[in-house]
Amino acid sequence: MEGFGVHTSMWTMSWDREGCERAVAKAVSYGMDFLEIALLRPDAVDAAHSRKTLEAAGMRSVCSLGLPEAVWASRNPDGAAEFLKLALDKAAVIGSEALSGVVYGGIGERTGVPPTEAELDNVARALTEAAAHAKSLGLLLGIEPVNRYETHLINTGWQGVAMVEKIGAENVFLHLDTYHMNIEEKGIAQGILDAREHLRYIHLSESDRGTPGAGTVQWDEIFATLKAVGFKGGLAMESFIDMPPEIAYGLSVWRPVASGAEEVMGEGLPFLRNKARQYGLI
Amino acid sequence: MEGFGVHTSMWTMSWDREGCERAVAKAVSYGMDFLEIALLRPDAVDAAHSRKTLEAAGMRSVCSLGLPEAVWASRNPDGAAEFLKLALDKAAVIGSEALSGVVYGGIGERTGVPPTEAELDNVARALTEAAAHAKSLGLLLGIEPVNRYETHLINTGWQGVAMVEKIGAENVFLHLDTYHMNIEEKGIAQGILDAREHLRYIHLSESDRGTPGAGTVQWDEIFATLKAVGFKGGLAMESFIDMPPEIAYGLSVWRPVASGAEEVMGEGLPFLRNKARQYGLI
Amino acid sequence: MEGFGVHTSMWTMSWDREGCERAVAKAVSYGMDFLEIALLRPDAVDAAHSRKTLEAAGMRSVCSLGLPEAVWASRNPDGAAEFLKLALDKAAVIGSEALSGVVYGGIGERTGVPPTEAELDNVARALTEAAAHAKSLGLLLGIEPVNRYETHLINTGWQGVAMVEKIGAENVFLHLDTYHMNIEEKGIAQGILDAREHLRYIHLSESDRGTPGAGTVQWDEIFATLKAVGFKGGLAMESFIDMPPEIAYGLSVWRPVASGAEEVMGEGLPFLRNKARQYGLI
Amino acid sequence: MEGFGVHTSMWTMSWDREGCERAVAKAVSYGMDFLEIALLRPDAVDAAHSRKTLEAAGMRSVCSLGLPEAVWASRNPDGAAEFLKLALDKAAVIGSEALSGVVYGGIGERTGVPPTEAELDNVARALTEAAAHAKSLGLLLGIEPVNRYETHLINTGWQGVAMVEKIGAENVFLHLDTYHMNIEEKGIAQGILDAREHLRYIHLSESDRGTPGAGTVQWDEIFATLKAVGFKGGLAMESFIDMPPEIAYGLSVWRPVASGAEEVMGEGLPFLRNKARQYGLI
Repeated sequence: MEGFGVHTSMWTMSWDREGCERAVAKAVSYGMDFLEIALLRPDAVDAAHSRKTLEAAGMRSVCSLGLPEAVWASRNPDGAAEFLKLALDKAAVIGSEALSGVVYGGIGERTGVPPTEAELDNVARALTEAAAHAKSLGLLLGIEPVNRYETHLINTGWQGVAMVEKIGAENVFLHLDTYHMNIEEKGIAQGILDAREHLRYIHLSESDRGTPGAGTVQWDEIFATLKAVGFKGGLAMESFIDMPPEIAYGLSVWRPVASGAEEVMGEGLPFLRNKARQYGLI
Repeated sequence: MEGFGVHTSMWTMSWDREGCERAVAKAVSYGMDFLEIALLRPDAVDAAHSRKTLEAAGMRSVCSLGLPEAVWASRNPDGAAEFLKLALDKAAVIGSEALSGVVYGGIGERTGVPPTEAELDNVARALTEAAAHAKSLGLLLGIEPVNRYETHLINTGWQGVAMVEKIGAENVFLHLDTYHMNIEEKGIAQGILDAREHLRYIHLSESDRGTPGAGTVQWDEIFATLKAVGFKGGLAMESFIDMPPEIAYGLSVWRPVASGAEEVMGEGLPFLRNKARQYGLI
Repeated sequence: MEGFGVHTSMWTMSWDREGCERAVAKAVSYGMDFLEIALLRPDAVDAAHSRKTLEAAGMRSVCSLGLPEAVWASRNPDGAAEFLKLALDKAAVIGSEALSGVVYGGIGERTGVPPTEAELDNVARALTEAAAHAKSLGLLLGIEPVNRYETHLINTGWQGVAMVEKIGAENVFLHLDTYHMNIEEKGIAQGILDAREHLRYIHLSESDRGTPGAGTVQWDEIFATLKAVGFKGGLAMESFIDMPPEIAYGLSVWRPVASGAEEVMGEGLPFLRNKARQYGLI
Repeated sequence: MEGFGVHTSMWTMSWDREGCERAVAKAVSYGMDFLEIALLRPDAVDAAHSRKTLEAAGMRSVCSLGLPEAVWASRNPDGAAEFLKLALDKAAVIGSEALSGVVYGGIGERTGVPPTEAELDNVARALTEAAAHAKSLGLLLGIEPVNRYETHLINTGWQGVAMVEKIGAENVFLHLDTYHMNIEEKGIAQGILDAREHLRYIHLSESDRGTPGAGTVQWDEIFATLKAVGFKGGLAMESFIDMPPEIAYGLSVWRPVASGAEEVMGEGLPFLRNKARQYGLI
């Protein structure tokens, strides 16, 4: 994973044939290096079609997801492992380089108390099994800390690193997200300092998940620290403007945070690319 | 309301006699101008004792709360109004200058869809009744927008202003909080620009609710804009380090975000006071 | 003065016919609202040609300058007043709305000790005379504080305000510059707070005078405070990339601070305009 | 060099016996790890007394200077080398660990045109000779880029690195200063990114050279990047509040930029130390 990509949420939340074709065409038109595909329902994806469409366009990809409640790893590690293996199989057929995201649980999973050792052990067990499967497929497996409201399990870079090291598989990496870091880290760059070589992927997402450059994230601090630790991974712009009801609850998007994809792509993308170039990251 | 105060969460989340006495003594020792009292269970408060303790110390106060689920204003405006009137009566006995906070609903209230007109009408109805009661007691009533995960109703400064104007009572004001602004506003100061003269109270809370100055909030931007709009209200430092289980869920505090009250008072307080003085706000 | 303009340094430092025509054509092509004309040698300007060229393009203008050493106001107030009157006459013929800049002295004027009362009295005397002449021509007269190395006389917003008030003419205004503010002010927005209604013009210049958005200036703080104080004046982008030797010394530009005008106009201009729009300033 | 120190300008600009004793006593009282001694007139220093005073207090030291005009290295490399050797001898007797600062020229040296190859060759020749002498004494030699107004020779981190590499001696290091970086670098941390392992010393100086934390420097970005590149060198707080006339011109300090040493030590020092601790640098 390397280069500058974008999450498909910009153009579709349904990775069906039509959504895939539209998103790939758009990504090509903006010169993206890769697409992050939201694999919300892996079983429903026509992976062969995705692969053909991506290959025809010369577009690389990464898949990401959160787990359905029935298979949250903290309490159903076997179910989680099975689900992740299916998703990894799909990602492999699609030709993606990694499966990442909230692979350890649900977006919105909160017990009301701090994570227990038993929960973290379950997560590690599920992810260890998934990592082995990913390795057999030549895939990487990423872990994305998200903010306190979206999970009680892994909120910060150092918590994510602890899980990566607990699993101890070389194809498991940390995946940070500036939107969450803005809430959770002691200084926007702290998670990068804690992650260092474990960090191979980062979501460039504004503080309100709207247009990058128009919020409160201190981008120079992000990019300078990425450069300083020798980051070589993927930079993925992510915004959530309009969400289908089934995922709106977890993400809690109640209003449009940008006027539309044109604003994000027309203002946010040049802003982020200029900054990434300024710091020699692309 | 004016001057520099602190939320009692620093020393107690139980506003019983012991908690009250400890918090007031601490606030005096740090030279605070006022205390913000969390009125989580107004009926259980010994208001006469609070008044006596506060008066003896020469300490001013503001009360704050969120509504219990049974009386969320969006769906039970009459229940909300009754609850708020009781809380206002207590605040009056305590000698507080205002009742503020998430007076329009629960901390954690989210339907999964954007607020409806009917919900906002209910909120306005409850708060209009509460405002009239507050006026009869010589009290102000504040409305605090909180982030998307803590409510779906009022997340930004402009949404709060819309509610203040919908109510149209001169004793109703906007109460901002830098922790929430850091997530919701387009630029950390945007809520202040939208609120202007409606703004009479602000929580100075760090991005992770830990020690002010050690997170991602751009404090100069906050203070410069407060000064520029002519802010004359109360500045209240707020951190949530250790929370009782019944409120941990809404606030989603799963780890200590500071080493303790000593760190917040020893490092965060001087940081904020120096900045407030630099900009001529205290 | 209002809207979003640009300093002609972007395209020419010689305001001769050819430079004028090129700069006006460029300014039109970028949709600028006005041009700031560097009136380094007022006597050499073909003002009638400038007026014709500007009018034909529908382009408004502001003139700016620094004084030649022989007529530094601090020690030769009469000479300064004469020079400024000539420059004002030229600005009037050009059709400009104001004459501004380091109208009180030289760029690089430093005695080695703090400004004396006598020096400031001389400056006030020269500028009072110039302001009266400006008024007779329907022009405004601006005073731009510059950093400690470019003058020892007026470095900060409050020093500039003190001079504006010492002169006491209603057509005299303060002109700030973010490049200088970044060095001199206690918080990038402090000069705006000190100037308030006196502020009618601001140079949007990056910390190294290169491409706006690629340096250390905190732009959100600037724009939020401008909005908060009700700023209605002109926003003028300014960069100094290549300078002729005679002015390189004062500005101390020893290396290219951008790859060229294309970078400044292609990256810096959209950055500043997006921010100005975000804060409702254009 | 390591730990957290302070420039003696805080307490004295005259490194005579009295100034030395006062500064050392003050530094001890504030728990500083080292003192940076301004060696403006090396020949006049009673080095044996300095050593005795420092040793008795257990205080480490670094010496710094700028060259007198007669021995500017760009045009008098032999004179510069002689002067630096004398200063190094003094620093060795004092027991300092390094000689650093504007060792390549004068503070205020500007020809009016970019540095020529011949000038830089002269600088390299003088510093190569000085570095060899420093090595024989067991001392390090530092090069501090300063802003465009204080020299035309070395303004940025990458220019400093180019000189360090041109000299090619392992006891020569880069010495950055946040005050100058705030003016010259493309992003406050860029100089650190360019310097990396060459960086062994940094002046923590606010944007107006006043109280750290009260200006425009983005400290989190500085500290995060220092941590990220593995910085192990000395952190030296530097402010210039009251300057003797002979150095006021070069530094161009025309007004008090803090109310006094109490403000800098009482507010600025805790601010910087808290940040340095937050990022694990002390």
